[in-house]
Amino acid sequence: MKKPDVSIVMGSTSDLPVMKLAQELLRKFGVSFETRILSAHRSPDDTTRYAKNAAARDVKVIIAGAGGAAHLAGVIAGNTTLPVIGVPIKTPDLKGIDSLLSIVQMPSGVPVGTMAIGEAGAKNAAIFALEILAVKNPGLRKKLRAFKKELQLAVRKKDKTLKGH
Amino acid sequence: MKKPDVSIVMGSTSDLPVMKLAQELLRKFGVSFETRILSAHRSPDDTTRYAKNAAARDVKVIIAGAGGAAHLAGVIAGNTTLPVIGVPIKTPDLKGIDSLLSIVQMPSGVPVGTMAIGEAGAKNAAIFALEILAVKNPGLRKKLRAFKKELQLAVRKKDKTLKGH
Amino acid sequence: MKKPDVSIVMGSTSDLPVMKLAQELLRKFGVSFETRILSAHRSPDDTTRYAKNAAARDVKVIIAGAGGAAHLAGVIAGNTTLPVIGVPIKTPDLKGIDSLLSIVQMPSGVPVGTMAIGEAGAKNAAIFALEILAVKNPGLRKKLRAFKKELQLAVRKKDKTLKGH
Amino acid sequence: MKKPDVSIVMGSTSDLPVMKLAQELLRKFGVSFETRILSAHRSPDDTTRYAKNAAARDVKVIIAGAGGAAHLAGVIAGNTTLPVIGVPIKTPDLKGIDSLLSIVQMPSGVPVGTMAIGEAGAKNAAIFALEILAVKNPGLRKKLRAFKKELQLAVRKKDKTLKGH
Amino acid sequence: MKKPDVSIVMGSTSDLPVMKLAQELLRKFGVSFETRILSAHRSPDDTTRYAKNAAARDVKVIIAGAGGAAHLAGVIAGNTTLPVIGVPIKTPDLKGIDSLLSIVQMPSGVPVGTMAIGEAGAKNAAIFALEILAVKNPGLRKKLRAFKKELQLAVRKKDKTLKGH
Amino acid sequence: MKKPDVSIVMGSTSDLPVMKLAQELLRKFGVSFETRILSAHRSPDDTTRYAKNAAARDVKVIIAGAGGAAHLAGVIAGNTTLPVIGVPIKTPDLKGIDSLLSIVQMPSGVPVGTMAIGEAGAKNAAIFALEILAVKNPGLRKKLRAFKKELQLAVRKKDKTLKGH
Amino acid sequence: MKKPDVSIVMGSTSDLPVMKLAQELLRKFGVSFETRILSAHRSPDDTTRYAKNAAARDVKVIIAGAGGAAHLAGVIAGNTTLPVIGVPIKTPDLKGIDSLLSIVQMPSGVPVGTMAIGEAGAKNAAIFALEILAVKNPGLRKKLRAFKKELQLAVRKKDKTLKGH
Amino acid sequence: MKKPDVSIVMGSTSDLPVMKLAQELLRKFGVSFETRILSAHRSPDDTTRYAKNAAARDVKVIIAGAGGAAHLAGVIAGNTTLPVIGVPIKTPDLKGIDSLLSIVQMPSGVPVGTMAIGEAGAKNAAIFALEILAVKNPGLRKKLRAFKKELQLAVRKKDKTLKGH
Repeated sequence: MKKPDVSIVMGSTSDLPVMKLAQELLRKFGVSFETRILSAHRSPDDTTRYAKNAAARDVKVIIAGAGGAAHLAGVIAGNTTLPVIGVPIKTPDLKGIDSLLSIVQMPSGVPVGTMAIGEAGAKNAAIFALEILAVKNPGLRKKLRAFKKELQLAVRKKDKTLKGH
Repeated sequence: MKKPDVSIVMGSTSDLPVMKLAQELLRKFGVSFETRILSAHRSPDDTTRYAKNAAARDVKVIIAGAGGAAHLAGVIAGNTTLPVIGVPIKTPDLKGIDSLLSIVQMPSGVPVGTMAIGEAGAKNAAIFALEILAVKNPGLRKKLRAFKKELQLAVRKKDKTLKGH
Repeated sequence: MKKPDVSIVMGSTSDLPVMKLAQELLRKFGVSFETRILSAHRSPDDTTRYAKNAAARDVKVIIAGAGGAAHLAGVIAGNTTLPVIGVPIKTPDLKGIDSLLSIVQMPSGVPVGTMAIGEAGAKNAAIFALEILAVKNPGLRKKLRAFKKELQLAVRKKDKTLKGH
Repeated sequence: MKKPDVSIVMGSTSDLPVMKLAQELLRKFGVSFETRILSAHRSPDDTTRYAKNAAARDVKVIIAGAGGAAHLAGVIAGNTTLPVIGVPIKTPDLKGIDSLLSIVQMPSGVPVGTMAIGEAGAKNAAIFALEILAVKNPGLRKKLRAFKKELQLAVRKKDKTLKGH
Repeated sequence: MKKPDVSIVMGSTSDLPVMKLAQELLRKFGVSFETRILSAHRSPDDTTRYAKNAAARDVKVIIAGAGGAAHLAGVIAGNTTLPVIGVPIKTPDLKGIDSLLSIVQMPSGVPVGTMAIGEAGAKNAAIFALEILAVKNPGLRKKLRAFKKELQLAVRKKDKTLKGH
Repeated sequence: MKKPDVSIVMGSTSDLPVMKLAQELLRKFGVSFETRILSAHRSPDDTTRYAKNAAARDVKVIIAGAGGAAHLAGVIAGNTTLPVIGVPIKTPDLKGIDSLLSIVQMPSGVPVGTMAIGEAGAKNAAIFALEILAVKNPGLRKKLRAFKKELQLAVRKKDKTLKGH
Repeated sequence: MKKPDVSIVMGSTSDLPVMKLAQELLRKFGVSFETRILSAHRSPDDTTRYAKNAAARDVKVIIAGAGGAAHLAGVIAGNTTLPVIGVPIKTPDLKGIDSLLSIVQMPSGVPVGTMAIGEAGAKNAAIFALEILAVKNPGLRKKLRAFKKELQLAVRKKDKTLKGH
Repeated sequence: MKKPDVSIVMGSTSDLPVMKLAQELLRKFGVSFETRILSAHRSPDDTTRYAKNAAARDVKVIIAGAGGAAHLAGVIAGNTTLPVIGVPIKTPDLKGIDSLLSIVQMPSGVPVGTMAIGEAGAKNAAIFALEILAVKNPGLRKKLRAFKKELQLAVRKKDKTLKGH
């Protein structure tokens, strides 16, 4: 298997329906990725080992999704100097505001680049990872520009359809 | 040094003015304790090692205070089966609601017994630790009852003073 | 009937679907428990009497679940020196943030070890009770370690399954 | 001493600077009152006894001020059928939103008439108590109307002063 | 028609499914009431006229339910010296926290006795009204005590059923 | 005195330090205005009369600032078809989130154009009033464009200063 | 096509079911409008161009609906001196409190007149636009008065129906 | 002047005391940066032009700090495919929760990597930018590892000092 550039991690398989939106976008851009289930609380040693080894395995960016007292992204960030992108998963009671605050309010020294709660956040995590990879990859930058153009054209098309009515 | 029954941990020395209220209460009850500075994000290996070894060192209860994306208590709880008591430290912006949610909203399997935000929480962490230790310690239970009586009498005294006016 | 080590209390039978998750875990660990319906507001005398007598009946830990202006755990804690674990039940309007704040923000002197809102909180209340009982019970401690190992292996298994795809 | 019509209760002397605003208004209206320090958590028996006996002592209305996990008003309401007015005291961290939710979100069967957080709430608790007493007291009703007129004239006076500039 | 002792007002017929819980309780206690649809924003003159005349019509207590920017209770309270009880109706987006704050945070001089959000609040508004009416009505006080006893017995019965299992 | 185009209303003189920022901007643009103290709760008749007569007095836009259960803007909007702009005043406890929700969450039929909490809101209320007046006033539109240009140049100047360092 | 007086803009076609409530009201009042899909983030150039040209096309008022990090209204307001009315769209996780704060908390100099979250907000945006247009249009003012009267009569009718029961 | 790798942008000079913490860290790591004042609302054209040209000027990462309805980061992200890091600035009323939600809740397609509110966020924005730059820069990666080690040693030193007492 090709060494993955992006590593998607989540705390539980119940996060997969949201996090697979990140997978789909990375696949669309032809960027290699792996997907892992790791828990800051239930499999802490595996999580630490994973985080410590990621850079050596040539992973470039980590995307971590978790909900509630969402410590996964922060714990990984404490064990690597790779950029870690956090996706707050919506919770059944507090609707993800707990996940968001647990991920974004990191102390100085250990950042997590936090995305929106839920599906938009998962998609954007992939795009943000692509933007990071594109820093030294003009081909990928070009693809991102084309994607941005697509977004614009999709809006413009809807705008025209609506105006036609 | 006597082996400590309670271990107080905090993420930063800036938490000490709050957490020392826990120290004072443990001291008052004659229960041995240690105080540690450990960070889930900045010294993760030390934190993990500490948590894994605490039971072997005969620590009975852990009190962990942290603020913001407060992962300390949760990370320790992931690495021990000792009861972990969490104290949310007030933050300058969100006033500790971030700390509270990051500590209390733990996923099933890994509990943290969470106290109030700030000073009341630090004091109560000590009392809760004493209540745990008293489960098999009738002498300590008796002291706790006396303490409860004291609290009651203090209120009653204030009540009488006020009524006198 | 064997004297219960853990006493599960809730304010209303509508809390039972959540609180039974605590029952199941205690049963799994072979720890004796009782379940009570008591209300801080509707049956205050029964609640006070219950709380005052719990220690004498050799109860070791109390788990109290309630929602809204959730005073049950706090009122019990005011009438016993046993450790009281609070489970905030989700409410239909404010989603349990009211229950959480009503349980966790206790004044100094009278702690309640607060768990997450809802189902995770109910399960964790049982585990936290077990951790407290294990303080002087090496057999139970061993079971908790095995349980922790199980959690880890379950995550690891899911991780492997996912990687296989 | 004249039997008090209104009983003002608070959880701690630190609530007195706020609650005295209720005293001042009752005094201004010539309504008899008493002031008590009682804690739902620290002096629960005294609180219960107080609440159970209030009606027999001819108290007509109870005003209860408390902060944080503010159980005082609710616990009193559980032990009396007198109308209980709750005043949420501002807390240093969550600014009284915890106090408010702990007081107002009472379960069906046991109401607490909740006022605004802090000083406005303390003053309004007194006025609300007066409105209750006035239900069968035309003289007091008349005084309340005069007070309302005063409020209106005070606003009108300020309005005129401002317009003059 | 008998002059009503209690007047139930709501801002819209969509509030009726909640507010009818207040009607049912008043009916159960044999207390006369009327029900009105009045809007602080859509029929302000009718609302003002209603509030100004309520005392003259011998209404003793007003219960006002409203949602969102819920001004109904406050506007009525500004036009009468009768006790006004506010019921915050749950909203589809903010779940009633907007209704609650709009009702409870009244400025000094014009109190609204605020109940819980939604159904519990509607029921409790009726009980609170009964408690107010009972101040000078020993017969009603007795009924309220019997009701309180019923609540207690209902909890006790559930408690026994549960213990039997 | 020239008939005012804009009428600034506030619930209390304590709101004046914030609301005077609106006065200053209107003065700067040479638009006539009046300033009133009116309370939805303490002087409801004056408020209603004011609102009903505003259009007849040739007022074009109303700016209403209030805090807490801020009903002033909504009550005025219920009594006029003039555009009403609401300014939520910061409160000492809930920091104005109560004022904001009380003003913005108006029911359908009776809008209030709500501004930011506090000083920015007061300034913007004036600008928004000017934008409304400019709908049929090309001279004022031109001044607003110049003002917008000024804002831009002020930012640009700061940008240049900073780049120079 | 007649030049539109009001321009309704939204960030996505998913906002249309809410925003069409604004269309319906404008249609009912016989006011010309256009509807556009424009995104501050996905079609920023189109949005800027649209905003800059709106006044020249004789648009009088802009209504902008958006959800989440809802920048659409603010970005348009930054590029025009026409009054911009913002409608916060409800989000699946945070229920629109994110949309509301992103729209209403504008910095001084660039106001957005913010409406309630969701459907009530969309309807009120239309009415607010009509109120603005009516500033110099007595015919429209008259229609708004009739509409206000209708609202009042509808409430009054419901009130009568209810009283009849 | 060397072409800057990182571009720090803020909406106002009042944000500089916070954002300069990002400058200091970049300086410490020897990474070139520029600092700009640009406003999404007050200088939108400059902001758009800046964002569109940043990649061409060889900027690699953008850090944008703003408060309130903080649209700056989102608007820039809409006009570039460079990674944009958002820093929510604390506001005087809502303490930055408004800034946080306005920055983090971006719609799919246009991510902003969001940091904690205030000073920790500004510092972490710099570190996150360094982590991004380090993706293809082993020398910088090494420096980041040394920095992480420093953080760990600083905690360890404090831990030792405390244990010595």
